[in-house]
Amino acid sequence: MKESGRKLGALSPCAACKLLRRRCAQDCVFAPYFPADEPQKFASVHKVFGASNVNKMLQELPEHQRSDAVSSMVYEANARVRDPVYGCVGAISSLQKQIDSLQTQLALAQAEVVHLRVRQFTSSSNPGAMDMAVDQATMGESLWSC
Amino acid sequence: MKESGRKLGALSPCAACKLLRRRCAQDCVFAPYFPADEPQKFASVHKVFGASNVNKMLQELPEHQRSDAVSSMVYEANARVRDPVYGCVGAISSLQKQIDSLQTQLALAQAEVVHLRVRQFTSSSNPGAMDMAVDQATMGESLWSC
Repeated sequence: MKESGRKLGALSPCAACKLLRRRCAQDCVFAPYFPADEPQKFASVHKVFGASNVNKMLQELPEHQRSDAVSSMVYEANARVRDPVYGCVGAISSLQKQIDSLQTQLALAQAEVVHLRVRQFTSSSNPGAMDMAVDQATMGESLWSC
Repeated sequence: MKESGRKLGALSPCAACKLLRRRCAQDCVFAPYFPADEPQKFASVHKVFGASNVNKMLQELPEHQRSDAVSSMVYEANARVRDPVYGCVGAISSLQKQIDSLQTQLALAQAEVVHLRVRQFTSSSNPGAMDMAVDQATMGESLWSC
Protein backbone atom coordinates (compact mmCIF):
# COMPACT_ATOMS: atom_id res chain seq x y z
CA MET A 1 0.00 0.00 0.00
CA LYS A 2 2.84 2.35 0.91
CA GLU A 3 4.65 1.36 -2.27
CA SER A 4 1.62 2.15 -4.45
CA GLY A 5 1.25 5.46 -2.56
CA ARG A 6 4.90 6.05 -3.41
CA LYS A 7 4.31 5.47 -7.12
CA LEU A 8 1.38 7.86 -7.17
CA GLY A 9 3.26 10.59 -5.33
CA ALA A 10 6.66 10.08 -6.96
CA LEU A 11 7.19 13.81 -7.27
CA SER A 12 7.13 14.48 -3.49
CA PRO A 13 10.23 13.27 -1.63
CA CYS A 14 10.03 10.68 1.16
CA ALA A 15 10.71 11.75 4.76
CA ALA A 16 14.35 10.62 4.48
CA CYS A 17 15.17 12.52 1.29
CA LYS A 18 13.32 15.56 2.64
CA LEU A 19 15.47 15.58 5.80
CA LEU A 20 18.66 14.87 3.83
CA ARG A 21 17.67 17.55 1.26
CA ARG A 22 18.30 15.27 -1.70
CA ARG A 23 16.35 14.20 -4.76
CA CYS A 24 14.09 11.23 -4.03
CA ALA A 25 14.77 8.77 -6.87
CA GLN A 26 12.14 6.35 -8.17
CA ASP A 27 14.08 3.46 -6.60
CA CYS A 28 14.92 5.25 -3.30
CA VAL A 29 15.66 2.57 -0.67
CA PHE A 30 14.05 4.66 2.11
CA ALA A 31 10.82 5.72 0.37
CA PRO A 32 8.71 2.55 0.98
CA TYR A 33 9.38 2.70 4.74
CA PHE A 34 9.65 6.40 5.52
CA PRO A 35 6.62 8.18 4.05
CA ALA A 36 6.62 11.99 3.98
CA ASP A 37 3.71 12.16 6.45
CA GLU A 38 5.71 10.41 9.23
CA PRO A 39 8.86 12.56 9.42
CA GLN A 40 9.61 11.57 13.06
CA LYS A 41 10.36 7.93 12.10
CA PHE A 42 13.32 8.86 9.92
CA ALA A 43 14.44 11.69 12.23
CA SER A 44 14.93 9.16 15.07
CA VAL A 45 16.84 6.51 13.09
CA HIS A 46 18.91 9.25 11.45
CA LYS A 47 19.88 10.70 14.84
CA VAL A 48 20.78 7.31 16.36
CA PHE A 49 22.08 5.14 13.51
CA GLY A 50 22.90 7.71 10.85
CA ALA A 51 21.36 7.77 7.36
CA SER A 52 24.24 5.95 5.67
CA ASN A 53 24.16 3.09 8.19
CA VAL A 54 20.38 2.70 7.80
CA ASN A 55 20.84 2.71 4.02
CA LYS A 56 23.59 0.07 4.28
CA MET A 57 21.58 -2.13 6.66
CA LEU A 58 18.53 -2.03 4.38
CA GLN A 59 20.60 -2.78 1.25
CA GLU A 60 22.07 -5.85 2.97
CA LEU A 61 18.60 -7.35 3.60
CA PRO A 62 16.19 -8.99 1.16
CA GLU A 63 13.20 -6.72 0.45
CA HIS A 64 10.67 -8.85 2.38
CA GLN A 65 12.63 -8.31 5.63
CA ARG A 66 13.20 -4.57 5.30
CA SER A 67 9.87 -3.46 6.76
CA ASP A 68 10.50 -5.46 9.99
CA ALA A 69 14.07 -4.17 10.13
CA VAL A 70 12.84 -0.56 9.85
CA SER A 71 10.23 -1.12 12.60
CA SER A 72 12.83 -2.56 14.97
CA MET A 73 15.31 0.24 14.17
CA VAL A 74 12.64 2.91 14.79
CA TYR A 75 11.74 1.21 18.10
CA GLU A 76 15.41 1.05 19.14
CA ALA A 77 16.10 4.63 18.06
CA ASN A 78 13.08 6.00 19.95
CA ALA A 79 14.19 4.10 23.07
CA ARG A 80 17.69 5.61 22.76
CA VAL A 81 16.27 9.13 22.27
CA ARG A 82 14.07 8.69 25.39
CA ASP A 83 16.89 7.12 27.45
CA PRO A 84 20.32 8.10 26.07
CA VAL A 85 22.18 6.01 28.67
CA TYR A 86 20.43 2.63 28.45
CA GLY A 87 18.23 2.81 25.33
CA CYS A 88 16.20 -0.36 24.83
CA VAL A 89 18.70 -2.32 26.96
CA GLY A 90 16.89 -0.61 29.87
CA ALA A 91 13.66 -2.33 28.76
CA ILE A 92 15.48 -5.69 28.53
CA SER A 93 16.81 -5.32 32.05
CA SER A 94 13.38 -4.37 33.42
CA LEU A 95 11.69 -7.34 31.65
CA GLN A 96 14.40 -9.64 33.02
CA LYS A 97 13.62 -8.42 36.57
CA GLN A 98 9.90 -9.02 35.96
CA ILE A 99 10.72 -12.60 34.86
CA ASP A 100 12.81 -13.22 38.00
CA SER A 101 9.95 -11.99 40.17
CA LEU A 102 7.33 -14.10 38.32
CA GLN A 103 9.55 -17.20 38.62
CA THR A 104 9.82 -16.66 42.38
CA GLN A 105 6.05 -16.18 42.71
CA LEU A 106 5.42 -19.30 40.61
CA ALA A 107 7.80 -21.40 42.70
CA LEU A 108 6.01 -20.24 45.88
CA ALA A 109 2.58 -21.03 44.45
CA GLN A 110 3.73 -24.46 43.27
CA ALA A 111 5.23 -25.20 46.69
CA GLU A 112 1.91 -24.18 48.26
CA VAL A 113 0.06 -26.60 45.95
CA VAL A 114 2.39 -29.44 46.98
CA HIS A 115 1.93 -28.54 50.66
CA LEU A 116 -1.89 -28.45 50.40
CA ARG A 117 -2.03 -31.73 48.48
CA VAL A 118 0.19 -33.52 50.97
CA ARG A 119 -1.94 -32.23 53.87
CA GLN A 120 -5.14 -33.26 52.11
CA PHE A 121 -3.95 -36.79 51.33
CA THR A 122 -2.41 -37.42 54.76
CA SER A 123 -5.56 -36.24 56.53
CA SER A 124 -7.52 -38.91 54.61
CA SER A 125 -5.16 -41.51 56.28
CA ASN A 126 -4.71 -43.69 53.21
CA PRO A 127 -1.62 -45.91 53.14
CA GLY A 128 1.03 -44.37 50.88
CA ALA A 129 -1.00 -41.13 50.70
CA MET A 130 2.08 -38.89 51.03
CA ASP A 131 3.75 -40.45 47.98
CA MET A 132 0.56 -40.10 45.93
CA ALA A 133 0.22 -36.44 46.87
CA VAL A 134 3.80 -35.65 45.93
CA ASP A 135 3.43 -37.62 42.67
CA GLN A 136 0.27 -35.69 41.74
CA ALA A 137 1.84 -32.36 42.64
CA THR A 138 4.90 -33.20 40.55
CA MET A 139 2.65 -34.11 37.60
CA GLY A 140 0.98 -30.73 38.07
CA GLU A 141 4.33 -28.97 38.02
CA SER A 142 5.41 -30.70 34.84
CA LEU A 143 2.12 -29.69 33.19
CA TRP A 144 2.64 -26.06 34.19
CA SER A 145 6.16 -26.03 32.89
CA CYS A 146 5.01 -26.98 29.37
CA MET B 1 41.66 1.83 36.06
CA LYS B 2 41.17 2.08 32.32
CA GLU B 3 41.83 5.80 32.50
CA SER B 4 45.13 5.32 34.33
CA GLY B 5 46.04 2.63 31.76
CA ARG B 6 45.26 5.23 29.15
CA LYS B 7 47.59 7.78 30.74
CA LEU B 8 50.42 5.30 30.96
CA GLY B 9 49.99 4.19 27.37
CA ALA B 10 49.19 7.55 25.82
CA LEU B 11 51.37 6.83 22.83
CA SER B 12 49.35 3.84 21.60
CA PRO B 13 45.96 4.74 20.09
CA CYS B 14 42.66 3.44 21.51
CA ALA B 15 40.65 0.88 19.51
CA ALA B 16 38.48 3.63 18.02
CA CYS B 17 41.33 5.83 16.79
CA LYS B 18 43.13 2.75 15.49
CA LEU B 19 40.09 1.73 13.40
CA LEU B 20 39.47 5.31 12.25
CA ARG B 21 43.21 5.74 11.50
CA ARG B 22 43.48 9.01 13.37
CA ARG B 23 45.73 10.42 16.07
CA CYS B 24 44.52 9.48 19.56
CA ALA B 25 44.55 12.76 21.50
CA GLN B 26 45.14 12.92 25.25
CA ASP B 27 41.48 13.90 25.76
CA CYS B 28 40.05 11.41 23.20
CA VAL B 29 36.38 10.81 24.11
CA PHE B 30 36.57 7.14 23.05
CA ALA B 31 39.81 6.12 24.77
CA PRO B 32 38.49 5.44 28.31
CA TYR B 33 35.81 3.06 26.97
CA PHE B 34 37.42 1.45 23.93
CA PRO B 35 40.85 0.11 24.94
CA ALA B 36 43.18 -1.09 22.19
CA ASP B 37 43.01 -4.70 23.44
CA GLU B 38 39.23 -4.95 22.80
CA PRO B 39 38.95 -3.89 19.14
CA GLN B 40 35.63 -5.75 18.58
CA LYS B 41 33.73 -3.43 20.95
CA PHE B 42 34.35 -0.37 18.81
CA ALA B 43 34.04 -2.27 15.53
CA SER B 44 30.45 -3.23 16.45
CA VAL B 45 29.25 0.22 17.54
CA HIS B 46 31.02 1.77 14.56
CA LYS B 47 29.24 -0.58 12.16
CA VAL B 48 25.79 -0.06 13.71
CA PHE B 49 25.73 3.52 15.04
CA GLY B 50 28.65 5.12 13.22
CA ALA B 51 31.66 6.71 14.92
CA SER B 52 30.34 10.27 14.71
CA ASN B 53 27.01 9.32 16.32
CA VAL B 54 28.77 7.46 19.15
CA ASN B 55 31.02 10.49 19.64
CA LYS B 56 27.99 12.83 19.72
CA MET B 57 26.03 10.57 22.12
CA LEU B 58 29.00 10.39 24.51
CA GLN B 59 29.63 14.16 24.38
CA GLU B 60 25.98 14.79 25.29
CA LEU B 61 26.26 12.73 28.50
CA PRO B 62 27.97 13.58 31.79
CA GLU B 63 31.18 11.55 32.25
CA HIS B 64 29.80 9.33 35.03
CA GLN B 65 27.10 7.97 32.67
CA ARG B 66 29.32 7.33 29.65
CA SER B 67 30.56 3.89 30.69
CA ASP B 68 26.96 2.56 31.05
CA ALA B 69 26.00 4.19 27.76
CA VAL B 70 28.92 2.48 26.00
CA SER B 71 28.00 -0.91 27.51
CA SER B 72 24.39 -0.60 26.37
CA MET B 73 25.47 0.57 22.89
CA VAL B 74 27.90 -2.37 22.55
CA TYR B 75 25.12 -4.78 23.66
CA GLU B 76 22.66 -3.25 21.18
CA ALA B 77 25.20 -3.22 18.35
CA ASN B 78 26.19 -6.87 18.91
CA ALA B 79 22.51 -7.85 18.91
CA ARG B 80 22.00 -6.00 15.59
CA VAL B 81 25.10 -7.66 14.06
CA ARG B 82 23.79 -11.12 15.14
CA ASP B 83 20.22 -10.39 14.02
CA PRO B 84 20.14 -7.66 11.36
CA VAL B 85 16.33 -7.73 11.11
CA TYR B 86 15.24 -7.53 14.76
CA GLY B 87 18.38 -6.62 16.73
CA CYS B 88 17.74 -6.47 20.46
CA VAL B 89 14.03 -5.86 19.81
CA GLY B 90 14.01 -9.63 19.12
CA ALA B 91 15.18 -10.22 22.71
CA ILE B 92 12.47 -7.87 24.02
CA SER B 93 9.78 -9.73 22.13
CA SER B 94 11.05 -13.12 23.37
CA LEU B 95 11.20 -11.91 27.01
CA GLN B 96 7.67 -10.53 26.64
CA LYS B 97 6.45 -13.97 25.48
CA GLN B 98 8.21 -15.57 28.46
CA ILE B 99 6.39 -13.13 30.79
CA ASP B 100 3.01 -13.95 29.21
CA SER B 101 3.68 -17.67 29.69
CA LEU B 102 4.82 -17.24 33.33
CA GLN B 103 1.74 -15.12 34.09
CA THR B 104 -0.52 -17.86 32.71
CA GLN B 105 1.30 -20.55 34.74
CA LEU B 106 1.09 -18.39 37.87
CA ALA B 107 -2.65 -17.79 37.42
CA LEU B 108 -3.18 -21.58 37.05
CA ALA B 109 -1.13 -22.34 40.16
CA GLN B 110 -2.97 -19.68 42.17
CA ALA B 111 -6.34 -21.03 41.01
CA GLU B 112 -5.20 -24.50 42.09
CA VAL B 113 -4.30 -23.14 45.54
CA VAL B 114 -7.77 -21.56 45.89
CA HIS B 115 -9.40 -24.82 44.76
CA LEU B 116 -7.42 -26.94 47.22
CA ARG B 117 -8.07 -24.56 50.12
CA VAL B 118 -11.81 -24.45 49.43
CA ARG B 119 -11.92 -28.26 49.28
CA GLN B 120 -9.92 -28.58 52.48
CA PHE B 121 -12.09 -26.13 54.43
CA THR B 122 -15.41 -27.47 53.15
CA SER B 123 -14.41 -31.05 53.99
CA SER B 124 -13.86 -29.92 57.60
CA SER B 125 -17.61 -28.86 57.61
CA ASN B 126 -17.09 -25.58 59.50
CA PRO B 127 -19.82 -22.95 59.06
CA GLY B 128 -18.54 -20.21 56.68
CA ALA B 129 -15.58 -22.42 55.70
CA MET B 130 -15.89 -21.54 52.02
CA ASP B 131 -15.56 -17.79 52.69
CA MET B 132 -12.55 -18.34 54.95
CA ALA B 133 -10.81 -20.46 52.33
CA VAL B 134 -11.35 -17.89 49.62
CA ASP B 135 -10.23 -15.08 51.99
CA GLN B 136 -7.03 -16.95 52.85
CA ALA B 137 -6.31 -17.75 49.21
CA THR B 138 -6.86 -14.11 48.28
CA MET B 139 -4.46 -13.03 51.05
CA GLY B 140 -1.95 -15.45 49.58
CA GLU B 141 -2.39 -13.97 46.14
CA SER B 142 -1.87 -10.43 47.41
CA LEU B 143 1.32 -11.55 49.17
CA TRP B 144 2.62 -13.14 45.97
CA SER B 145 1.89 -10.05 43.95
CA CYS B 146 4.10 -7.85 46.20
